Amino acid sequence: MGDCEQREDCATHPVDVTVIDRNNHHLFQPLLYQVATAGLSPADICAPIRGILKRQANTSVILGEVTGVDLQEQRVLMHDKAVPYDYLILATGARHSYFGHDDWEPFAPGLKSITDATMLRRNILLAFEAAEVETDPDKRRALLTFVLVGAGPTGVEMAGAISELAHKALTSDFRHIDPASARIILVEAGPRILATFPERLASRAQKELNHLGVEVRTGAAVEGIDADGVMIAGKHLAAQTVIWTAGVAASLAGQWLGTETDRAGRVKVLPDLTIPDHSNVFVIGDTASLAQKGKPLPGLAQVAMQEGTYAASVITQRIKDAHTGTSHAAVPFHYLDKGNLATVGRSFGIVDIKRIQFTGFIAWVMWLAVHIFFLIGYRNRFLVMFQWAWAYFTFQRGARLITYDNKTSLIE
Amino acid sequence: MGDCEQREDCATHPVDVTVIDRNNHHLFQPLLYQVATAGLSPADICAPIRGILKRQANTSVILGEVTGVDLQEQRVLMHDKAVPYDYLILATGARHSYFGHDDWEPFAPGLKSITDATMLRRNILLAFEAAEVETDPDKRRALLTFVLVGAGPTGVEMAGAISELAHKALTSDFRHIDPASARIILVEAGPRILATFPERLASRAQKELNHLGVEVRTGAAVEGIDADGVMIAGKHLAAQTVIWTAGVAASLAGQWLGTETDRAGRVKVLPDLTIPDHSNVFVIGDTASLAQKGKPLPGLAQVAMQEGTYAASVITQRIKDAHTGTSHAAVPFHYLDKGNLATVGRSFGIVDIKRIQFTGFIAWVMWLAVHIFFLIGYRNRFLVMFQWAWAYFTFQRGARLITYDNKTSLIE
Repeated sequence: MGDCEQREDCATHPVDVTVIDRNNHHLFQPLLYQVATAGLSPADICAPIRGILKRQANTSVILGEVTGVDLQEQRVLMHDKAVPYDYLILATGARHSYFGHDDWEPFAPGLKSITDATMLRRNILLAFEAAEVETDPDKRRALLTFVLVGAGPTGVEMAGAISELAHKALTSDFRHIDPASARIILVEAGPRILATFPERLASRAQKELNHLGVEVRTGAAVEGIDADGVMIAGKHLAAQTVIWTAGVAASLAGQWLGTETDRAGRVKVLPDLTIPDHSNVFVIGDTASLAQKGKPLPGLAQVAMQEGTYAASVITQRIKDAHTGTSHAAVPFHYLDKGNLATVGRSFGIVDIKRIQFTGFIAWVMWLAVHIFFLIGYRNRFLVMFQWAWAYFTFQRGARLITYDNKTSLIE
Repeated sequence: MGDCEQREDCATHPVDVTVIDRNNHHLFQPLLYQVATAGLSPADICAPIRGILKRQANTSVILGEVTGVDLQEQRVLMHDKAVPYDYLILATGARHSYFGHDDWEPFAPGLKSITDATMLRRNILLAFEAAEVETDPDKRRALLTFVLVGAGPTGVEMAGAISELAHKALTSDFRHIDPASARIILVEAGPRILATFPERLASRAQKELNHLGVEVRTGAAVEGIDADGVMIAGKHLAAQTVIWTAGVAASLAGQWLGTETDRAGRVKVLPDLTIPDHSNVFVIGDTASLAQKGKPLPGLAQVAMQEGTYAASVITQRIKDAHTGTSHAAVPFHYLDKGNLATVGRSFGIVDIKRIQFTGFIAWVMWLAVHIFFLIGYRNRFLVMFQWAWAYFTFQRGARLITYDNKTSLIE
């Protein structure tokens, strides 16, 4: 999809494309943590799918939830209808995984959708509100304790953003508490943070986190999570807000297809991204499992985007072959790692592009530029740039909005 | 509050101010219809109350829901605590009123809060989505029929905005329906639209609505609303989306005080905005009822703002008097009508400022300028201006986001 948006030549292929999504919008996930920490509005990082594809006349969009796939009849099953296909590309992504502890979910929500993000924003802002009127010092301390479970890029970015909120944006907003007294604790079961980045960069990021007032606890496995807080290495830590930034599990695509999956539920695909016995069914992105040079491909947007382009090119080649009576064997998919970026707080970035590895302000500017570039829509790019510049110079966060659905009453 | 923001001298009075609100944000209601029609994001028209008042050191903010007032003990009652007062200002606003037909509410939601606005946005966008996959022509027609009950400024502005959405923003987004075929019907029980404006201006606005494709039905009382549509003058009109833009009812303040109210539940206040026997309790805004020159004051922001300034000045004068041992009788509140503005669609405004009465493009520019001016916060002013400029030149609406709370599954 990203590729089509830029080249606009997809529309010229002699195919009918149907895009089915249960959301009406494309979500730019890398900036979701900024919605959760009141930096951006939901619509700033979303683009309506119909709007993105409006000029692509051979493409129609269905808003709806897929419930299964009928491989025999070649149909995608939905609640009240079925959509036939010649070729199928499944890119249904991933959700959080609590590693068998699904009972932790209510106490430690994760961050995958706009709804998750606005709920987290509400929880974080309400914790400060509740602390302001709490007179018991222990309860107040628990209200101002924020625990992030999992120190991958999302955990690190969230920790930095909550720290900025507490130390900068909320200063002098309260009369009975000092928001800067909030404890932000980043817990990681593994030996270090940012496991996918080189150790040298990760250790610099950890120093920056400490500098921002974030407590980093590596080698600390979470043993329990409940309404009162977290159990870490036999000790209970009282915390009102616990955020799950650890494991992910693939969507149900593996169950729909009845094909082999890995431990995280990802569909094991062949080197051309199709599944065994069904060369017209492709699985890509976070819901696919493929190894390259013995290592599984990571669950990153750039992997999914390259896989999408690859699957489309295989399909168009096969259609050409069918027309001309020729035959081309598909070259196996090859992932080209263009590098990784992350950010900590308001002016510290991490760049890891092959041999170019550095951290600091320039790395942060690169992070900004790349994220603005990949955001869909000029309007969103401008709005996000403006709000970042505003936040940078004023230290304020503009989207400090606590909203409720109609059924929920105010939490006192 | 608005006044303090601008003058910043409230903080110098020798008083302790406590602001209690069940929301953490101040909402700029006049632009709520733009959130409901995907033009703006919720945070663009909201400002956190703590942020607005952060420099006012004598003021603290409590996020919480008021449940009553104890006039004897001089305390404001909340779910789990009570806040004592020397002076009390109640400005608890209004909700929709269904004139005794509360059973209509689920089928014809109104527009008073951010939650209302995002729900309406979802309903409107989902109606187009459902029409796209509907094969039955009658059902499709009902899905593309939007009825607004009540042709005051909100009804007129919503009708214009939905028309713009259907005729401009969604063009070429769908493959099976033409969004421009949507019917938008503005129903008014009274003899004409915009009853609070001069007849000449209202009739020009009605022409503009017709020009935008909105059907205006005046003198048409709604007799019933259910899941299938609306009953008007004995005839059933099939419509998926019905929006209540008619009556309002005051908040529960009258019940809390046990004092006399008018038919809409508004507290009948004395000329100094206090209630009988309690000269330290003021009621202002949509929840107060006061006549001036024999006519009740309208439920407008400018009335509420002037009343707020007045109540504050009475209180500070009384405190000064108590200190100096002098006494000043309060001059009765006098409302100064600064004029009314409204807008229809993307470039037609209505201006009614004493003898200056005109409609059209210049009036629309005035509407824009006044609304930007009264929006709190430079950041919000800039964001709204940019999005309006973008929408004006591209015909696109940026916040086309359908979101759900976690409990709701997708409506198919």
